[in-house]
Amino acid sequence: MKCLTVELGERSYPIWIGPGVRQKLADLLQQAGIAPGRKLFVVTDQNIAPLYLEDTVQLLTEGGYAVHHFIVPAGEEAKSLAIYEQIMTEALTIGLDRKSAFLALGGGVVGDLTGFAAATYMRGVAFVQVPTTLLAHDSSVGGKVAVNHPLGKNIIGAFHQPKLVAYDTNALTTLPPREVASGFAEVIKHGLIWDASFVTWLEENADGLQAFDHELLQAALLRACSVKVAVVSQDEREQGLRAILNLGHTFGHAFEALTGYKGINHGEAVAIGMVAAARLAERLGLAENISERTVRVLRQYRLPVALPVPLDVDEMLDVMRRDKKGEGGKLVFVLPTAIGKVDIYKNIEEEPVRAVLAELYEGGEA
Amino acid sequence: MKCLTVELGERSYPIWIGPGVRQKLADLLQQAGIAPGRKLFVVTDQNIAPLYLEDTVQLLTEGGYAVHHFIVPAGEEAKSLAIYEQIMTEALTIGLDRKSAFLALGGGVVGDLTGFAAATYMRGVAFVQVPTTLLAHDSSVGGKVAVNHPLGKNIIGAFHQPKLVAYDTNALTTLPPREVASGFAEVIKHGLIWDASFVTWLEENADGLQAFDHELLQAALLRACSVKVAVVSQDEREQGLRAILNLGHTFGHAFEALTGYKGINHGEAVAIGMVAAARLAERLGLAENISERTVRVLRQYRLPVALPVPLDVDEMLDVMRRDKKGEGGKLVFVLPTAIGKVDIYKNIEEEPVRAVLAELYEGGEA
Repeated sequence: MKCLTVELGERSYPIWIGPGVRQKLADLLQQAGIAPGRKLFVVTDQNIAPLYLEDTVQLLTEGGYAVHHFIVPAGEEAKSLAIYEQIMTEALTIGLDRKSAFLALGGGVVGDLTGFAAATYMRGVAFVQVPTTLLAHDSSVGGKVAVNHPLGKNIIGAFHQPKLVAYDTNALTTLPPREVASGFAEVIKHGLIWDASFVTWLEENADGLQAFDHELLQAALLRACSVKVAVVSQDEREQGLRAILNLGHTFGHAFEALTGYKGINHGEAVAIGMVAAARLAERLGLAENISERTVRVLRQYRLPVALPVPLDVDEMLDVMRRDKKGEGGKLVFVLPTAIGKVDIYKNIEEEPVRAVLAELYEGGEA
Repeated sequence: MKCLTVELGERSYPIWIGPGVRQKLADLLQQAGIAPGRKLFVVTDQNIAPLYLEDTVQLLTEGGYAVHHFIVPAGEEAKSLAIYEQIMTEALTIGLDRKSAFLALGGGVVGDLTGFAAATYMRGVAFVQVPTTLLAHDSSVGGKVAVNHPLGKNIIGAFHQPKLVAYDTNALTTLPPREVASGFAEVIKHGLIWDASFVTWLEENADGLQAFDHELLQAALLRACSVKVAVVSQDEREQGLRAILNLGHTFGHAFEALTGYKGINHGEAVAIGMVAAARLAERLGLAENISERTVRVLRQYRLPVALPVPLDVDEMLDVMRRDKKGEGGKLVFVLPTAIGKVDIYKNIEEEPVRAVLAELYEGGEA
């Protein structure tokens, strides 16, 4: 069991990673300053509840906490204001107070939703992340919490750091293959933006990682989280540097939005978005020969590298202009300049973006 | 035109108070770092819109800002998640980005609602308070923003400091008498918790203030805001001291909730709550002879000092136990120990509270 620390002064917190971390949850909570006797509100989804809810509640109850729980629907649809309001109603009904803590048991959707509830319940209460997916290694660290608006993803949100992230690698072995692949997209992203040697390591260990070798999994998560921790510790509220974590996301959010958050999942959308970003960088003369290797490593992890359905270029551009990174309707992109290195480009011309998007459908001519 | 500063490091901001402040709004925005050319989203209500919206929009447009506006219903009902969602939808539709600013033009309801929208739109954008009521001198300073939940007032919220408070005393002269009285409740509160000499000054100048003498109004607001600024600068996120600003509010919120936020307005509820707090302090032996003077000064400003309708004692206690200051269902109160001095008392017994509540109906026996 390994520990990383997000260094944010009085908001610093540990990330525990390893097999069996969940078994030690009550101790870790106490270490993080959430004393036994407090009310804990465990929020999870319909997929995770049958797997981990009962024993998590039992472990925490045995640890001396007064545990309540709430189960939300599985999938991105749960990140809505309507479900958020249900959580608030339940929290009030069971009498949570300012000393209570919200605990997200699940993937990125559960973490984002629960975190936003914790950020705004009585103007902010303690929050704990217990991620159960590979993808959530990204969303569970860094304090970005949000729900979606029909007009845009993660538009309604806050910065609210957890008190603790407890990442049990045992939970990852029960994921369906498509979820696993989706999670590796963000792992690969952390290599592509920061650490070329990590990309090489991921290329070399693709088979072992996909066979859930525990040592390899723990090592991969430690390295990926280390990148995130380094970035977030320097720029908690995305004043500058932190935006690099969005490689592939401006494109990816558009793909997700235009397929109704259903056809393409988040990791898949980011994977295709990273291919688009590499091609755009090449087209703009910012980088050479990076899209081919990007495509190759994503394919090693069974990730899509082209749009499985044709999407309208104008509609994609419209969604991208509303992206949170944008200012005054201009297109802002994080683009790779080499493998392991990215930069932020504001005010990108529309034409090269159109050209990249037009060639992105896998059934297309390009 | 006078200026106070809330000292909160990089979140510090000015409060401008005086006749005609609104005319200088574009300059003040620019000084506060919100550059012309930015999109401004003015949120106001149906009562304020006919009085000040058109010329405010014109002044800001002439100052070089791209101004949009949104009108919400008047009254506490507007502080709902439903109206909040409407604001978010409008903000997205008109293309507000992270550099845009929300501007609350109105009383406390508009300020709280707009502030919560600004706190959570794209994880937080700039926010400006232009209060138009006396009562809002309190809510516009200090960064507490929120909407209500059917089960409790201000339960869903955040801390989000404005970039600027622009307080035009000219706006106050158009208020209906009951609104004026309600506003004086919080002015008097700032005396009662912090500054006995201010209470004396308010007793001596009750007639002049209620006749809207501009110099007296400006002086009263400066003194009341100074108390708030001193407290908030020491304890932005209510870890301790800041709770004293809630004198009368634990009682008051219960009165408001149980009359459906209609029968008794916020200032009136706080006034009756401050009488209840004084009586409870006397009953607990924490203070002597303070309720009589509290009642007298509130009456000078035409404020109620007893419940105009009978409310159920058990129901009041239930609501008070859910108060945000509470922990583990215990009753927590801010109670006066002298005129101009209060303290926070946790774990107050139920019996004396019951006795005070039972005698609080004006048609009652006591």
